[in-house]
Amino acid sequence: MANQLTSFLEIDPQSDFTIHNLPYGIFSEEPKSTKKVGIAIGEWVLDLALLESEGLLNLEGNINYFNQPTLNQFIESGKQNWQHVRKTIQSLLSVDNPILQENSDLRNRVLFSKNTVTLHLPIQVSGYTDFYSSKEHATNVGTMFRDPKNALLPNWSELPVGYNGRASSVIVSGTDIVRPSGQIKLPNNERPVFSATRKLDFELETAFIIGKPTQLGQPISINNAWDHIFGMVLLNDWSARDIQQWEYVPLGPFNAKTFASAISPWVVTMDALEPFKVKGPEQHPKPLHYLQENIATNSYDIHLSVEVQTPDSEQTDVICETNFKYMYWSMAQQLTHHTIAGCNVQVGDLMGSGTISGSAENSYGSLLELTWNTTKPLTLSNGEKRGFLEDGDRVIMKGYCEKDGIRIGFGQVENTILSAHTFDFNETEVEQYETV
Amino acid sequence: MANQLTSFLEIDPQSDFTIHNLPYGIFSEEPKSTKKVGIAIGEWVLDLALLESEGLLNLEGNINYFNQPTLNQFIESGKQNWQHVRKTIQSLLSVDNPILQENSDLRNRVLFSKNTVTLHLPIQVSGYTDFYSSKEHATNVGTMFRDPKNALLPNWSELPVGYNGRASSVIVSGTDIVRPSGQIKLPNNERPVFSATRKLDFELETAFIIGKPTQLGQPISINNAWDHIFGMVLLNDWSARDIQQWEYVPLGPFNAKTFASAISPWVVTMDALEPFKVKGPEQHPKPLHYLQENIATNSYDIHLSVEVQTPDSEQTDVICETNFKYMYWSMAQQLTHHTIAGCNVQVGDLMGSGTISGSAENSYGSLLELTWNTTKPLTLSNGEKRGFLEDGDRVIMKGYCEKDGIRIGFGQVENTILSAHTFDFNETEVEQYETV
Repeated sequence: MANQLTSFLEIDPQSDFTIHNLPYGIFSEEPKSTKKVGIAIGEWVLDLALLESEGLLNLEGNINYFNQPTLNQFIESGKQNWQHVRKTIQSLLSVDNPILQENSDLRNRVLFSKNTVTLHLPIQVSGYTDFYSSKEHATNVGTMFRDPKNALLPNWSELPVGYNGRASSVIVSGTDIVRPSGQIKLPNNERPVFSATRKLDFELETAFIIGKPTQLGQPISINNAWDHIFGMVLLNDWSARDIQQWEYVPLGPFNAKTFASAISPWVVTMDALEPFKVKGPEQHPKPLHYLQENIATNSYDIHLSVEVQTPDSEQTDVICETNFKYMYWSMAQQLTHHTIAGCNVQVGDLMGSGTISGSAENSYGSLLELTWNTTKPLTLSNGEKRGFLEDGDRVIMKGYCEKDGIRIGFGQVENTILSAHTFDFNETEVEQYETV
Repeated sequence: MANQLTSFLEIDPQSDFTIHNLPYGIFSEEPKSTKKVGIAIGEWVLDLALLESEGLLNLEGNINYFNQPTLNQFIESGKQNWQHVRKTIQSLLSVDNPILQENSDLRNRVLFSKNTVTLHLPIQVSGYTDFYSSKEHATNVGTMFRDPKNALLPNWSELPVGYNGRASSVIVSGTDIVRPSGQIKLPNNERPVFSATRKLDFELETAFIIGKPTQLGQPISINNAWDHIFGMVLLNDWSARDIQQWEYVPLGPFNAKTFASAISPWVVTMDALEPFKVKGPEQHPKPLHYLQENIATNSYDIHLSVEVQTPDSEQTDVICETNFKYMYWSMAQQLTHHTIAGCNVQVGDLMGSGTISGSAENSYGSLLELTWNTTKPLTLSNGEKRGFLEDGDRVIMKGYCEKDGIRIGFGQVENTILSAHTFDFNETEVEQYETV
């Protein structure tokens, strides 16, 4: 059984990267040296490129899956191969297997202390779609921005609302965020002003990565949808609320989101997540046929949190704790809906969950909701207050699953905010900002 | 002078592909044989891969720009190289140059009759953005779907509204379109039904292709924007109006658009379009500084048309004639706005203009507008009527520029509609459709 797997490596049972996890990522030994595929295990990164070249992964043929700058090539190899590699690595790391355990030279060559390597964007993001599948989040936003009495729009309960994001600005954890500038409409002004955003926000999300492509015009049926998903990451869908509010009608968010969408560097596979499956929320009304799942468990029990650290603070403050299992629409429903009209998906497509909010006030997945659009500022442990984020603030998102003594985790996605650019045109139009 | 250029090839002066044009595309000699870069000239396709390998393009070093399945590699080589290749090809095709003209063996190997080759998607589309920059189109849609008194939303006149499209479903002219299915909300029903779209529509657009990338967080200034554009194509942004109307709030169009966006196979360069520059419309209010262009001409005089042919008709009917010069926001303004908050662009990004409608009723660029949402059906020359498109209908879009006896054209983007899939789940929920 999985919970009897033990590694010869000393791994803290509270580590995100136990032998039950084995998430894939891209690392290099120096910041600019060759990128290759690794697996996170305890405090180490295991070099799959080297294991592959040594013939220790029992792969057929002369195929290069792991001496690659992204995971796409490996993902394209298909589910059977994902499972083969997972089992092979679990065996290589097992206390019952002497190959690595008793070969200190090999071990020293394939295991890197995770603090010494650089992590990179794990996939070449072919397309990026973001859903909006937390009922609590959609209700909160609708209440603030539209009409508290009709906070949830009629289509929300019938389909997993989603939109196309910008793939080029998907970045890996650790990349700094330049505060974006753009048009902001202040309530008492007739015209917008050009300004750095004053409402820079995070959105706590997860995202799944497509592992099996489809052809244009060929919808995925709900029963096959799970087979198209390779794994999951944490996603911070950075947002500029003031830019968003002015620009988003009628075609949706654009510059308010396209400046950065950050993901965690380790892709946790659906195989690793399997033990943590749970039933998602009851759906009323019952969805149309193409969205009906006939399985007992279609969600995952993933604990999620957001921490903030200001430049003046020596520690992080946990400002949100929530869970993936609150999501109303499942990943299979999202993917099925995405393709029902004929849209094709590609290996490396990233599909965001949408902000994950629970019902409790400390479980809201954005500052917009946590501070109710600055009307209820947060007070941090050092006494500082926050409506939205300030320059130098660092945002860290974490996620993990735990059950029957087994733990796996996502690591984290963290970014620090840099001050906005100054622009060389005359900025006389930029007026003093009034808090809405 | 350009208008004194003459080719040794016999080219109809009314051809889209005169020596003044030289658009780039991807072709193969057989449908599944090797793809390579070609140029359209008169009735021929000129094989640049062969010219390159014969050393006739005077390119430095051992670089392969043209034995490639997309134009991306060549585009990445930069503007100076684009202009060098253009001049070299114009010279090779000129009546003054003996190299091709007097070498019938070489000529026969590098020139293919355009009817014998297969054309492919010319670029690997990195990202696809669609703008909404025709004032007439935005006003028409706002009048029908929202409020005639406030048809144009307040942000429309301040910024080039745009949204992220789906890059994976960008297809080349000639690809058939499967009628999409999805959720449709009928006016008298409480819940949506699952159905094939009954409001399948085209959108007449052009699109520009990014030739010079940027880094994340580095906006393009309006004065540099034109340097980032390689060329233009025709774009039919296929749309399912009933799916769109139900799904689009609050995050914008999704399945209504992601089933297909078709482009013409030949990329017309900005160098070829240069003689056809004109001044765009006056802009009131004067845009914010970052969108102010200080040049005399920022638009292009491109005649555009849409033709429809039904399965029962032996000829096509021209149902729309319009012009690119009506666009309110320029391509430079669109691109500058796209990057102002920090979004990076990549070589091969496709940026759609949005539907191009003029002020005359026959210049509207969609059936939604031409038939005013089916209330004024079109009568075709064979007596058939059309509200939206029916199965078997073929839609052809064309574009050309003409000035001082010089003509260049885009060729065409054309697609035929196939009937919808049947789905294997119980479709009892699908009710009879009532025309709105």
